[in-house]
Amino acid sequence: MNVDVKQPVSVNEFDRLSAYWIMTFVGNPRIAVRLWNGNEYYFADGTPVGVMEFRDRSALINLLLSPSVGFGEGYSKGNIEIHGDILEFLNEVAEAFVRRRDQGYYSSKFRSLLRALRGNTLARSRNNVHHHYDLGNDFYEMWLDEHMAYTCAYYEHPDLTLAEAQVAKFDHVCRKLELKSGQDVIEAGCGWGALAMHMAEHYGVNVKAYNNSHEQISYAREKAAARGLSDRVEFVEDDYRTISGQCDVFVSVGMLEHVGLKNYRALGRIIDRCLRPTGRGLIHSIGRSHPRPPDPWISKRIFPGGHIPSLGEMTSIFEPFKFSILDVENLRLHYARTCDEWLQNFEKVSDKVRETYSEEFVRAWRLYLGGSSAAFRSGTLQLYQVVFAPRGNNDVPWSRKYLYSPDSAGD
Amino acid sequence: MNVDVKQPVSVNEFDRLSAYWIMTFVGNPRIAVRLWNGNEYYFADGTPVGVMEFRDRSALINLLLSPSVGFGEGYSKGNIEIHGDILEFLNEVAEAFVRRRDQGYYSSKFRSLLRALRGNTLARSRNNVHHHYDLGNDFYEMWLDEHMAYTCAYYEHPDLTLAEAQVAKFDHVCRKLELKSGQDVIEAGCGWGALAMHMAEHYGVNVKAYNNSHEQISYAREKAAARGLSDRVEFVEDDYRTISGQCDVFVSVGMLEHVGLKNYRALGRIIDRCLRPTGRGLIHSIGRSHPRPPDPWISKRIFPGGHIPSLGEMTSIFEPFKFSILDVENLRLHYARTCDEWLQNFEKVSDKVRETYSEEFVRAWRLYLGGSSAAFRSGTLQLYQVVFAPRGNNDVPWSRKYLYSPDSAGD
Repeated sequence: MNVDVKQPVSVNEFDRLSAYWIMTFVGNPRIAVRLWNGNEYYFADGTPVGVMEFRDRSALINLLLSPSVGFGEGYSKGNIEIHGDILEFLNEVAEAFVRRRDQGYYSSKFRSLLRALRGNTLARSRNNVHHHYDLGNDFYEMWLDEHMAYTCAYYEHPDLTLAEAQVAKFDHVCRKLELKSGQDVIEAGCGWGALAMHMAEHYGVNVKAYNNSHEQISYAREKAAARGLSDRVEFVEDDYRTISGQCDVFVSVGMLEHVGLKNYRALGRIIDRCLRPTGRGLIHSIGRSHPRPPDPWISKRIFPGGHIPSLGEMTSIFEPFKFSILDVENLRLHYARTCDEWLQNFEKVSDKVRETYSEEFVRAWRLYLGGSSAAFRSGTLQLYQVVFAPRGNNDVPWSRKYLYSPDSAGD
Repeated sequence: MNVDVKQPVSVNEFDRLSAYWIMTFVGNPRIAVRLWNGNEYYFADGTPVGVMEFRDRSALINLLLSPSVGFGEGYSKGNIEIHGDILEFLNEVAEAFVRRRDQGYYSSKFRSLLRALRGNTLARSRNNVHHHYDLGNDFYEMWLDEHMAYTCAYYEHPDLTLAEAQVAKFDHVCRKLELKSGQDVIEAGCGWGALAMHMAEHYGVNVKAYNNSHEQISYAREKAAARGLSDRVEFVEDDYRTISGQCDVFVSVGMLEHVGLKNYRALGRIIDRCLRPTGRGLIHSIGRSHPRPPDPWISKRIFPGGHIPSLGEMTSIFEPFKFSILDVENLRLHYARTCDEWLQNFEKVSDKVRETYSEEFVRAWRLYLGGSSAAFRSGTLQLYQVVFAPRGNNDVPWSRKYLYSPDSAGD
């Protein structure tokens, strides 16, 4: 887009310095700043890809005091406006932030540790999950695919639809786990149950699937009954920490983000306790290239209590119990595309969402979905699928070639 | 095999308890113990797969005081004899050790850290490498494959020979790196130069390959000249810490084992400095399922100064520099088979080796090769190939399918 950048006529030095400081902090993106009084500033080279408008001085000051929350809340409440395509804007900011070489590795690691020391008691983690997932099934049905899969899809071929790519993800996970008919599978954090039902229906396994969201479990049970799968899929409305029994396969897709770093060892112990020596497991999680505390705005508004781990942090689930890590795949570009499709679907129903909730809610979700897409595309976020087995289990494939053979899917 | 286990007639209680303690420590393998006086003890169930004979009491006491060095040196010097197939014997011991549930995770982690605090100065690391690799090219030529590859082979198909599987490994690495003609490649720790020459010859890249073993570099230069590759492969006789210049691809196969944990951050900094933002890297290393100090006998006799990292420890190369880990593959079963083939080749020339070196040398190497095979097969050791890229590099494949397509090799 073209943005008309005016030269400032009357300059309030404080406002200009604040705008300059913010843009420098972000890494000098090609973003112009417009103030409530019409003044505009642009500090980068080249043509701006968007304009960030502050509707009043308090929006500017809030962003200065707390960049993430200040921007997130400012945009949600409409005190900050973005002119231009929001996804282009967010991608530009995310890329600039990655280009900026920050030296804060150890301070991030320290902050990450401090964060980890705060808790996720059983009760609090139930509340955290309610905050996000109990918004109502109706809300998610409006913009997720028909399987209600709310995790990274797998675009096995570039022309897949979102729904097809979600099924491709289910099969990719099932192939990695080498599911065999009659096996016992435990799934930790099953969402609306799509993967659990897919495993039972297409691979003939018995699934015990845990989730502490009442809304999701009710939905999953209803679907399983309608599909005649109730005898092979048991949906348990409870926390992963109550998992009991033995299994051949342990799988968890998109739950680890909510577990919290200080509970990783407990999670590892649960897997160690339930997985048979000949078993196999997979954990699929959003990740980071390096340890970092959660984004403050995402923590406040979207996912309270979560932690996005680096791969090194994830190994603290497996290493105390001597699991052998067999395979790690990074699917971050797939998640960027998944978020793009969610955002497109969301925009189509945003009028309806606004009626039920509010304009602020719509703007917060737009920012969350668009910001996530930009974070995966820029490499601020990663998506790891980690396959593991109890140490000494030699019943593992010699090569990953079978994952990519056309005849290796279920049925 | 069948072993005739005599019931003890006259029992020296100290000797019996020592034998019992050793077998319990190892996890009760199906191994009988024979003493210098003819007494035999067997504490496990089932038929023994071998007999460990102590030729005198000092061999027994040395093993008690320091299990790894006591066994390694005792066997090498002939004060301990193994009756039965040595590989069966070692596999049984390694499996028993893995079955044994030890709770020492944190103490291992602490010992691993202590070890890491000891140094690998430039001078010492040159000495360490001389110890092993400057035994003489003639020695390794006797039992390695014709390419002189002294790292894990890749049995892409089960019927490959060792030499074919080493070439398959080169191609597997090159495909993971998506080598393109004209690219600049830096290789850290190039051994006898086989991978460097393969990359230049079949993928048209320019390689700068580092190694601080004088014997190996001389050999590699001679081969490159004979193959007409001297203009495309530069062999540098120097430590990886002196690496300079920029590259599109960084690769290191089988060097990390010698780097030492406390130098991982320095290695990461070197990669960060030399790898272009659009680049890609691969580190191939022996690994462990969990942090553990090096085996004392291996440290003393075979690889002084080395450290075998867990995957979590390996991430400390990448995370401080925010590299994005793209792919991790575990090839431990391939390394078990590689070691088996090395041991077979070694046994064929053991008479010749004995002439040049000594019986003690032959026995030490037999134990080292057989013990390594057993360690990879039992899961005591892993083999990780880690592919990574600078954060934000989106020129990465969406799927790993291309790795397994027949038309993706060089030429």
